[in-house]
Amino acid sequence: MTESGPHAPADATADVPAPHGYITDKDRYLNRLKRIEGQARGIRTMVEDERYCIDILTQISALTSALETVALGLLDDHLRHCVVDAARAGGIEAEEKIAEASQAIARLVR
Amino acid sequence: MTESGPHAPADATADVPAPHGYITDKDRYLNRLKRIEGQARGIRTMVEDERYCIDILTQISALTSALETVALGLLDDHLRHCVVDAARAGGIEAEEKIAEASQAIARLVR
Amino acid sequence: MTESGPHAPADATADVPAPHGYITDKDRYLNRLKRIEGQARGIRTMVEDERYCIDILTQISALTSALETVALGLLDDHLRHCVVDAARAGGIEAEEKIAEASQAIARLVR
Amino acid sequence: MTESGPHAPADATADVPAPHGYITDKDRYLNRLKRIEGQARGIRTMVEDERYCIDILTQISALTSALETVALGLLDDHLRHCVVDAARAGGIEAEEKIAEASQAIARLVR
Repeated sequence: MTESGPHAPADATADVPAPHGYITDKDRYLNRLKRIEGQARGIRTMVEDERYCIDILTQISALTSALETVALGLLDDHLRHCVVDAARAGGIEAEEKIAEASQAIARLVR
Repeated sequence: MTESGPHAPADATADVPAPHGYITDKDRYLNRLKRIEGQARGIRTMVEDERYCIDILTQISALTSALETVALGLLDDHLRHCVVDAARAGGIEAEEKIAEASQAIARLVR
Repeated sequence: MTESGPHAPADATADVPAPHGYITDKDRYLNRLKRIEGQARGIRTMVEDERYCIDILTQISALTSALETVALGLLDDHLRHCVVDAARAGGIEAEEKIAEASQAIARLVR
Repeated sequence: MTESGPHAPADATADVPAPHGYITDKDRYLNRLKRIEGQARGIRTMVEDERYCIDILTQISALTSALETVALGLLDDHLRHCVVDAARAGGIEAEEKIAEASQAIARLVR
């Protein structure tokens, strides 16, 4: 289950590997999420300034799309790492991981 | 940010035009959007802390739901005010407003 | 464009207007829905024949898209006709129509 | 259409290998898809009969939900069987299966 090589947490000097698959892209995720925070702030400012509803809706759709991209990326990483590792390790952990993943997918789809 | 002052209907000859339908609920929208910003920040912190993917996905779904609620509220306000006012005023403006609204709905649905 | 009078069926040679907005495109809707039925039947056959899951999922996504297109079209027609007419007629009917439309939009979005 | 005969588990040494994960629930899927076809037909009849747009939209949402349920079921089966089997077999097939699954998920989410 170890993911060879040190995956130091972004700001830490730890010698222990990071547990989760997305770690290899951590900086990319953090950049995207910083941008997403900016988008959320921008939408609040638009309401504050009483901008045109339709323009605000356009920004909300853009933000939702950005969140979907992050979610799909995390899910793909999760399948590639946690689920595959669990499947290889055998036992019921793989089933549990897949049940969790399926529930997460259902929440995204609905 | 103040909400005092008259909100003249669309076809009035007031000197302070009412900006947009959502204005009556502006504070509620602002509160929701502040909470949404907090949710976005929380998701970034979860990635920073390398929390479990599935837990992050759960938070992303919650944030997406919150955004949908805001979007559906703005859209309802838009129909109730801008579209109805334009329909009553006559002319082609109503058609344009509806075309815009339909495009915004399509972006939300897809 | 008047909507008074009896509601003649689409294929009638009546001089009376059809009731609902989509009627002008009725044949187009019917063709699309016939195609949608064919897509649904095709998906059942794929399961019957035990085709590869991913290929079935692709067809389900295509069918869902086709349904969304029909739904967005009907909604646009509804706004253009029922809502605008109700707004012009005045009274509370416009509000009711918009409440209905907003609920329908929410069901499509969520 | 018959479902008689052994559906060997993936790792068994049966002479009739089970093709795809969903096979265990094949009858349930077929019943659901038969119902879905009926829903599609019902929607066409509603348009034929020029029923109220909003009522048609309600039925389209119900059909979309039913399709999502089927899709999420197939995806779960796919992860439980194809992906897990490929992960256990080793090699790059697991990666390919996951890439496919991720693309299918993205099509469902967007």
